[in-house]
Amino acid sequence: MSKSPEEQHPVKAFGWAARDQSGHLSPFNFSRRTTGEEDVRFKVLYCGICHSDLHSVKNEWSISTYPLVPGHEIVGEVTEIGEKVKKVKVGDKVGVGCLVGACHSCESCENDLENYCPKLILTYNSIYPDGTPTYGGYSDHMVANEHYIIRFPDNMPLDAGAPLLCAGITVYSPLKYFGFGEPGKHVGIVGLGGLGHVGVKFAKALGARVTVISTSPAKKDEALNILGADSFLVSRDQDQMQGAIGTFDGIIDTVSAAHPIMPLLGLLKSHGKLVMVGAPEKPLELPVFSLIVGRKTIAGSGIGGLKETQEMIDFAAKHNITADVEVISMDYVNTAMERLAKADVRYRFVIDIGNTLPATKT
Amino acid sequence: MSKSPEEQHPVKAFGWAARDQSGHLSPFNFSRRTTGEEDVRFKVLYCGICHSDLHSVKNEWSISTYPLVPGHEIVGEVTEIGEKVKKVKVGDKVGVGCLVGACHSCESCENDLENYCPKLILTYNSIYPDGTPTYGGYSDHMVANEHYIIRFPDNMPLDAGAPLLCAGITVYSPLKYFGFGEPGKHVGIVGLGGLGHVGVKFAKALGARVTVISTSPAKKDEALNILGADSFLVSRDQDQMQGAIGTFDGIIDTVSAAHPIMPLLGLLKSHGKLVMVGAPEKPLELPVFSLIVGRKTIAGSGIGGLKETQEMIDFAAKHNITADVEVISMDYVNTAMERLAKADVRYRFVIDIGNTLPATKT
Repeated sequence: MSKSPEEQHPVKAFGWAARDQSGHLSPFNFSRRTTGEEDVRFKVLYCGICHSDLHSVKNEWSISTYPLVPGHEIVGEVTEIGEKVKKVKVGDKVGVGCLVGACHSCESCENDLENYCPKLILTYNSIYPDGTPTYGGYSDHMVANEHYIIRFPDNMPLDAGAPLLCAGITVYSPLKYFGFGEPGKHVGIVGLGGLGHVGVKFAKALGARVTVISTSPAKKDEALNILGADSFLVSRDQDQMQGAIGTFDGIIDTVSAAHPIMPLLGLLKSHGKLVMVGAPEKPLELPVFSLIVGRKTIAGSGIGGLKETQEMIDFAAKHNITADVEVISMDYVNTAMERLAKADVRYRFVIDIGNTLPATKT
Repeated sequence: MSKSPEEQHPVKAFGWAARDQSGHLSPFNFSRRTTGEEDVRFKVLYCGICHSDLHSVKNEWSISTYPLVPGHEIVGEVTEIGEKVKKVKVGDKVGVGCLVGACHSCESCENDLENYCPKLILTYNSIYPDGTPTYGGYSDHMVANEHYIIRFPDNMPLDAGAPLLCAGITVYSPLKYFGFGEPGKHVGIVGLGGLGHVGVKFAKALGARVTVISTSPAKKDEALNILGADSFLVSRDQDQMQGAIGTFDGIIDTVSAAHPIMPLLGLLKSHGKLVMVGAPEKPLELPVFSLIVGRKTIAGSGIGGLKETQEMIDFAAKHNITADVEVISMDYVNTAMERLAKADVRYRFVIDIGNTLPATKT
């Protein structure tokens, strides 16, 4: 693209972008397309900070293109709709998660699994069919095809609901697909961070018996008494782990740091499944024999399709599930990123875009 | 046990055993129990040599107890039955595979999956409830509860049918369980050895499109023209592998040497499954991101339950599926083990126990 970010599209936009792999974010003027006939334009009110945002601004996956405007847990209020839009009207509360496009003709798309479409277009750090970059939700407004718009139910708070668009669907989808979230099932949630804490809430609401598995005994009280888990396993405690061998139908592993998975496979019943939703940068060790004895499975799962994301938000609203968030102002974002890198947040930062972004405009 | 192997039971038995981790096999006098009311006793006619036998005689899994009589692909002719036995009669051709016991009360047993029972009793190198060791099929006769007896159909050759009791069920079970063996499905078989070659035959007979994936281009002709595979991929050929990305519904990996699995995950369609049936001694590298993109699965699978083993043998008989075997005499077994270690066999050694074991009796 020879045109500057400000000139690529007709509609002026403003947000915060990282310019290089220092990851430092600062005010950024760019542009967005006009509202197409199937498009929904909305004023961004809140945007969650996902751990992927941190990886992306620092180019830790080696796929970042700068300037990069992060944010894929975006909620706001509709300001304009295209003439063919049926899903929402002006004034509605809506969200956009990780996706803004897909091919709509492959097997995954035909099965409402746009998240597994080989041609998916991510909400930021991706490329639209017209060759221009996608910019995320750390910005004043957003425009997306209505297919990628999630309706926010009236009783869903916008700030604490925003992280569900990524963290929520990331745990909800495997709970449903692998059948863990059913009465009588015993499911483990490894790691009590942004993903894990909503994983506990969804699994409980779906009717499963939930055990949090964590390296940190200090999280026990919160897991049991605040989040509502049924039990707590300290993964470094050999006796506790030994006593729980063969008792789990499924485990959702949210940890993105390197860690041993053999002890987790040991916790599974025969035919049990370990689902990885965190993505360690380096390969983990795979003990094949532990899979064969008991026909166990390790699977991956990444976010969810649009239909399931809407289902998840509606389910969350019905069961009063939200993320536990710390709402911050836009100009706190670099400090928040530093704290996130140290896991110093319970459990998700959400930027108050609507009230604090305009003040940062240069 | 203070009693010697010859004195543990009333019925004299004779076979070949390894005495230490040299793995060298030599004539061995021991004993077997009398025929209980639910037991079937049979004269062993043939016994296949499984790669597990080689691991076991050399104690490569560090679980071997000596003296060790290997062999879990055992076929023969019934000589005596207990009064409650209904499954077979004297003179019938029968087989015993990897299992001779299980708890019959756990969830796995209740679902005809005795192979995943935590208390399963293996055909050799295991312990009966009375505390005596189990001895395998490199021996003159065998006695087992009728539950563990497989009926051999009349048209199933005993020598070439023997390896199906382990190699056959090991590939048949995952083909069925994971749904690969269905018309329209594209399944890959990695490794063309004892397991792989019957895997190709079963997958074809079940109606799947079958691609053999091998490091060795020299096996292409045999894979396509003798075994009937539809296509052949040289796993070391980057262009071939690249051209096949995202085209497999499932892959059965029979390789027990260390090898990279990321290229295999790349061959899978979204939601595709890689099933490990070979057990490398050391952990493999697990690239988690490759699982998440496309919700892919790595699973293990180990042999099969008794009901499914009978189903597999009946299916094989109906479709004229046997193993390709090299029949050897008992006194060739140590040479055969050396050749097996070098993969110098197409594709399975089978010992002609009935005709050649007696001559080795000391």
